[in-house]
Amino acid sequence: MPSDKPTMSPKTTDPHIRWHQQLVTRAMREARNRHRSALVWFTGLPSSGKSTLAHNVEEKLFAGHYAAYVLDGDNVRHGLCRDLGFAEQDRIENVRRIGEMANLFLDAGIITLAAFISPYKADRQAVRTLVGPDNFIEVFCRCPAEICEARDEKGNYAKARAGVITRFTGISAPYEVPPDPDLILDTDRTNIQTSVSAVLSLLRERCIISEGGEGHAL
Amino acid sequence: MPSDKPTMSPKTTDPHIRWHQQLVTRAMREARNRHRSALVWFTGLPSSGKSTLAHNVEEKLFAGHYAAYVLDGDNVRHGLCRDLGFAEQDRIENVRRIGEMANLFLDAGIITLAAFISPYKADRQAVRTLVGPDNFIEVFCRCPAEICEARDEKGNYAKARAGVITRFTGISAPYEVPPDPDLILDTDRTNIQTSVSAVLSLLRERCIISEGGEGHAL
Repeated sequence: MPSDKPTMSPKTTDPHIRWHQQLVTRAMREARNRHRSALVWFTGLPSSGKSTLAHNVEEKLFAGHYAAYVLDGDNVRHGLCRDLGFAEQDRIENVRRIGEMANLFLDAGIITLAAFISPYKADRQAVRTLVGPDNFIEVFCRCPAEICEARDEKGNYAKARAGVITRFTGISAPYEVPPDPDLILDTDRTNIQTSVSAVLSLLRERCIISEGGEGHAL
Repeated sequence: MPSDKPTMSPKTTDPHIRWHQQLVTRAMREARNRHRSALVWFTGLPSSGKSTLAHNVEEKLFAGHYAAYVLDGDNVRHGLCRDLGFAEQDRIENVRRIGEMANLFLDAGIITLAAFISPYKADRQAVRTLVGPDNFIEVFCRCPAEICEARDEKGNYAKARAGVITRFTGISAPYEVPPDPDLILDTDRTNIQTSVSAVLSLLRERCIISEGGEGHAL
């Protein structure tokens, strides 16, 4: 079950950066964990439920003794990407850095749950290519903007409509719908438990986790 | 033993970024892992042995069933920080991003081994502050530049002396010696096994790992 493909191969041609031999490989970590690592990428409009869903999947995986970790706006926009805004180039760089960081979490054997608006198709595609298509699962949290807006406790949609917040995805910045996601969840009509189950089923189908596998309770 | 302090607290005042409730906390992960997480920061001149040492510590920790992961020039300079060069501002940003990423690895319950020249005192101090002093262990890989140069298989020191590589730490860029590191290893005079043992002893002293703790072989 562990993937043979090493994720960490040299990508630069800079001859001054030397490549060390990894003594502990991803395959060794996956064998130890008794599950594969993968990147589950939740994309969708603001307030479409991405982060809530990712945290609930993480909770289930943790309960099942799987190594899992959520990357989302909360722990990335305040930290690694705090220097970036919401202009197009900043959004591209935001997703690029998240993809690179996620790639290291995968290498560390962790099922990584990334919840980001990630509005551009090309950027999501770039992350898929970076981590390898076998390691990337795109989950589209589909929800009409009106519902997202009604659900938005902070009133960001209203502020965006009033022009107080600029470059707000769905109002004043584009969102490119995934043409071929691995999973579509209609988060306006599906409750959280059902949505979590759908993600876990997909992880089983892709052999990332296993039904009642040794050492795992899920 | 798990640390009470949550590492992920809001740091920005941007009111448009909403903070989600973590369902799986660092303390829960540390309790599951039966060890604390911490950031071991290896600093020193190029070819002073930082990365080799970090990988050997990782191997030992993995053998002892501890969750550990190396961040170094190999997996960061080629990925997350591939847009950065070696000018002062780039080095500062390089260490800042690594610190932020390491902070998420800590939150994920992982003993994180960071091996970077990290030439500026202020930047290392900033990482210490970010992750919290109790979570930061600075290891100075001390080695005379002549020995580093003799050991440098790629001939980067020679290229730096010839001006082919510019801004090379120790030759054409400064290295600020840590005034008060947690551990000094004279890597020119100490063999790798002894150095690895010294790091592991320090981790035991700081109650990051435990001697023959339940589930751990080390």
